[in-house]
Amino acid sequence: MFREKIKVLDCTIRDGGLMNKHDFDLRFVREVYKAISEAGVDYMEIGYKNSRKLFSTKEFGKWKFCDDEDIRRVIEGIQSKTKISVMVDVDRVDIEDVLPKKDSPVDMIRVAAYVKDVDKAIYLVNHFAEKGYETTVNIMAISRALDNELTECLQQLEKESKAQIIYIVDSFGSLYQETAEFLIKKARSILKTKEIGMHAHNNQQLAFGNTIEAIIHEANYVDGSIFGLGRAAGNCPTELILGFLKNPKYDIRPILDVISKEFIPLQKKIEWGYFIPYAITGILDEHPRTAIALRESDKKENYREYYESFTSEVEE
Amino acid sequence: MFREKIKVLDCTIRDGGLMNKHDFDLRFVREVYKAISEAGVDYMEIGYKNSRKLFSTKEFGKWKFCDDEDIRRVIEGIQSKTKISVMVDVDRVDIEDVLPKKDSPVDMIRVAAYVKDVDKAIYLVNHFAEKGYETTVNIMAISRALDNELTECLQQLEKESKAQIIYIVDSFGSLYQETAEFLIKKARSILKTKEIGMHAHNNQQLAFGNTIEAIIHEANYVDGSIFGLGRAAGNCPTELILGFLKNPKYDIRPILDVISKEFIPLQKKIEWGYFIPYAITGILDEHPRTAIALRESDKKENYREYYESFTSEVEE
Repeated sequence: MFREKIKVLDCTIRDGGLMNKHDFDLRFVREVYKAISEAGVDYMEIGYKNSRKLFSTKEFGKWKFCDDEDIRRVIEGIQSKTKISVMVDVDRVDIEDVLPKKDSPVDMIRVAAYVKDVDKAIYLVNHFAEKGYETTVNIMAISRALDNELTECLQQLEKESKAQIIYIVDSFGSLYQETAEFLIKKARSILKTKEIGMHAHNNQQLAFGNTIEAIIHEANYVDGSIFGLGRAAGNCPTELILGFLKNPKYDIRPILDVISKEFIPLQKKIEWGYFIPYAITGILDEHPRTAIALRESDKKENYREYYESFTSEVEE
Repeated sequence: MFREKIKVLDCTIRDGGLMNKHDFDLRFVREVYKAISEAGVDYMEIGYKNSRKLFSTKEFGKWKFCDDEDIRRVIEGIQSKTKISVMVDVDRVDIEDVLPKKDSPVDMIRVAAYVKDVDKAIYLVNHFAEKGYETTVNIMAISRALDNELTECLQQLEKESKAQIIYIVDSFGSLYQETAEFLIKKARSILKTKEIGMHAHNNQQLAFGNTIEAIIHEANYVDGSIFGLGRAAGNCPTELILGFLKNPKYDIRPILDVISKEFIPLQKKIEWGYFIPYAITGILDEHPRTAIALRESDKKENYREYYESFTSEVEE
């Protein structure tokens, strides 16, 4: 697939940070930035911009806060055309922490929000756009959104927000291609003036398949992470996206190198990827948090019992 | 997805056997058969029917030969509606080894062949059909087939073969959904009197996505393997297929159980799944044999060098 407009955002450090409290050391983050830059990847998302009033710097690493000076330490001395992105969650950011774009190494701010928080997301994204940043709204947990509410959310984003890109986020890794296609087409039909993005999770080994599906249906922004590093089952592997895209600006080899050198050793410290409890939450369209807890317990391979913990609940 | 006609064939023991010279012990194979039977999976493929004149029983385990008496030892005493399948390779079978269906525990024989071997495949499959078996032809390495030759192959299979099902086999795990769709639609348009099957490999984490794609476009036979066990990157995980299909005859829980009890320990003995050298062969549409060799060498994590070993060759 070649389409000039396609942009790849690598969210290794940001989404991977969910598995180690955002505590990657500077050397590792620089190696990732170097590889991403050499590979020609368009954006690198480095973490969250969270308020220090809400989260302790003792409990969490640097990339939970993403101070401009920490970002400068990552990028200094490395030749790069890769832009820097940070993510912001509704109700967790101090907007005063964010300087005008001209005074910051950050290029893009992505606001992650549930459908129900669309008004807050629009407020935030417009604020950051006015400060000069490229902006996106990432609609989380879209597999749980009711169709009429999603319609209204997309209509509001089209009319009221200054975000250039709206992402479909399959937070639970539960979408199959048919639904990915439906959602991208739906977004495409409402968001006349904006680009569409796709952020997929790999619980059912469909992150790459759904990302291709999104590209086929005219999504031009896609998220990947190196070797799939990300929460629980992880994300769409950046190396597979670069293997698929024919755009000559991309080079897969620096990504292969950094996997050899940094990510194979990292696998001994952090667990991510295809594990059955994550597959189960994907199949059942559930948040992976209980699966992550299970993997940290002495019942980590008790799959049947874990599966039945969902299906034995009677709801009416 | 629910469609009554859909049938699932589990090829764990057959394709997984490519990673251990078909040497699973009887206890393990019985546990797999029991789980597959309880899960309601339609077929279990247990191995290859190879000629003892060509392969040594000292070098290879039982499931390279699949004697009827060995199969009887697997199934005896286990209640099951699951049918037994064996695979046959062109030029590697002694047709005299295959008894008439009425005297054998085998229900289905699948003939694996490259496009160029279609005449041999038709000869074999018609022979087995006349002996009373359900039969298929599995077109291997379809990503390498030239379009006009594939057309002729499919036309011959439609006119001259007694196979009920023709499988598209993505041997190298190199297909993206667009091509999977193209191939399934092409097969559907030519094979008016036959069912279509899909056998996918997971080099690029697309085995499940391509299997769904095939189902969307009216393939009714799909191959899976438990926890994806199979050559190199492995196959489409049976547990994911069962999670996707809504057919009430299937139950995912026995598969979850057998993964906990048998496949997690097996991971310490056999390596399969998503490893970068397999992703590289998938991206480049190459046979995984050099990647398997690399994984057994002391250069197993030298991905860049391995990648460049393909791209530095100049061909004209």
